[in-house]
Amino acid sequence: MNLTIDVIGIGAGSPAHLTLEAVAALGEVDAVFAMDKGAVKADLLAARRAILDAHAPGARLVTVPDPPRDRDPRDYRATVEDWHDRRARVLAEAIRAALPDGGRGAFLVWGDPSLYDSTLRILERIRALGVDFGTRVIPGITAVQALTAAHGVTLNRVGRPVLTTTGRRLGERPAGMDAVVMLDGGAAWLEHADPAEEILWGAYLGTGLEILRRGRVGEVGEEIAAEKARLRAGHGWIMDIYLLRGAG
Amino acid sequence: MNLTIDVIGIGAGSPAHLTLEAVAALGEVDAVFAMDKGAVKADLLAARRAILDAHAPGARLVTVPDPPRDRDPRDYRATVEDWHDRRARVLAEAIRAALPDGGRGAFLVWGDPSLYDSTLRILERIRALGVDFGTRVIPGITAVQALTAAHGVTLNRVGRPVLTTTGRRLGERPAGMDAVVMLDGGAAWLEHADPAEEILWGAYLGTGLEILRRGRVGEVGEEIAAEKARLRAGHGWIMDIYLLRGAG
Repeated sequence: MNLTIDVIGIGAGSPAHLTLEAVAALGEVDAVFAMDKGAVKADLLAARRAILDAHAPGARLVTVPDPPRDRDPRDYRATVEDWHDRRARVLAEAIRAALPDGGRGAFLVWGDPSLYDSTLRILERIRALGVDFGTRVIPGITAVQALTAAHGVTLNRVGRPVLTTTGRRLGERPAGMDAVVMLDGGAAWLEHADPAEEILWGAYLGTGLEILRRGRVGEVGEEIAAEKARLRAGHGWIMDIYLLRGAG
Repeated sequence: MNLTIDVIGIGAGSPAHLTLEAVAALGEVDAVFAMDKGAVKADLLAARRAILDAHAPGARLVTVPDPPRDRDPRDYRATVEDWHDRRARVLAEAIRAALPDGGRGAFLVWGDPSLYDSTLRILERIRALGVDFGTRVIPGITAVQALTAAHGVTLNRVGRPVLTTTGRRLGERPAGMDAVVMLDGGAAWLEHADPAEEILWGAYLGTGLEILRRGRVGEVGEEIAAEKARLRAGHGWIMDIYLLRGAG
């Protein structure tokens, strides 16, 4: 039995972010496995469905209910570990059932499989559960690149480093370091950015809902936080990202 | 006169890294502007030419001699500033000459225009010289994503930050922080990485010359440095990138 599981980065919202490599890979896929995250992300499910209809019309879409996750845990790491383990078990079953004689399965990943995504780690766990397969990773456009492209700016300033981090860890950023922040469930810039820093913010990047804001944190920070809360309430979900650039 | 200059990320070596958005943009382009970096990068010029032949057969390729640059300056920043200024002047002339009545010009950028690339800054300078145009930035797959995809790993470890930096600035990395390093003209890991750290190294990513190495810096660091020197001598150029992951 010859089983391959592709992990395909599909870009940060726009179907036009798909690479030629991803399009070719989609054309070879027998089954696409996906976690169903419920109604709140129905917009994203529709976008993914459109990608499959256009580029993998022959593939079967196998949707697996996502195990529930504690969103405000005291031990973040242990909770994520446990959640990944439960995901691995339901996905291993789904893969065995859908491709009993082998073939080519795929996971579609928003952005790129390397950045704050758990698919590659979950595949390791599925392998540890006794499912034998090869893996091919297809890189995709990340929200970081979608953000800088939309603002028409570079991520780094000349010769300077830049930190990629999360809202949760922004407070640990070394003083004066530029940072791009993902997975911020709130508005960590209000607490952890200097008012003189510039914030370049974007939400729903690459989609019809795309919205951009830019200015000093001290001037636009509160306004962006209010807008983010409003947008999340209105759409039922939000994906946003931002770049913080020190005044120095 | 209506002049647009697209800045198109063409990915990190493989023509299949092109996105559908980039392909569409290339199809609309009247002239592509490029700096001629001399014979040492002839492989890269050939790859770019192949992309243009496939996706922008109607576009004119305008090659401009790259002004010389001091590669080992005492004042790095001032030297880069001066070099960008000279590039802007020759490119402004080339744009005026090639598109006197407007239209759509483009710069193709390896990787993504946001990451250690000067095109967006040079366009600002060209605008300051009195050339009026709009800009559209098309994101592309970076060498960072090509590296992690080739190694089949994630860039960040669960919930952790990661630093993007250069060989020149690697020594300033905060203790214990994972880092992805670009623009290392030498082997900065020998000086600035802990022997217990893991290095995931790749060169000529996405091309037929692609080569990967992985291991503890203390075990494979010297070997990779020797291989890098050998490859550079053999091919006349090298593009490499690596991820350093602390033992913690």
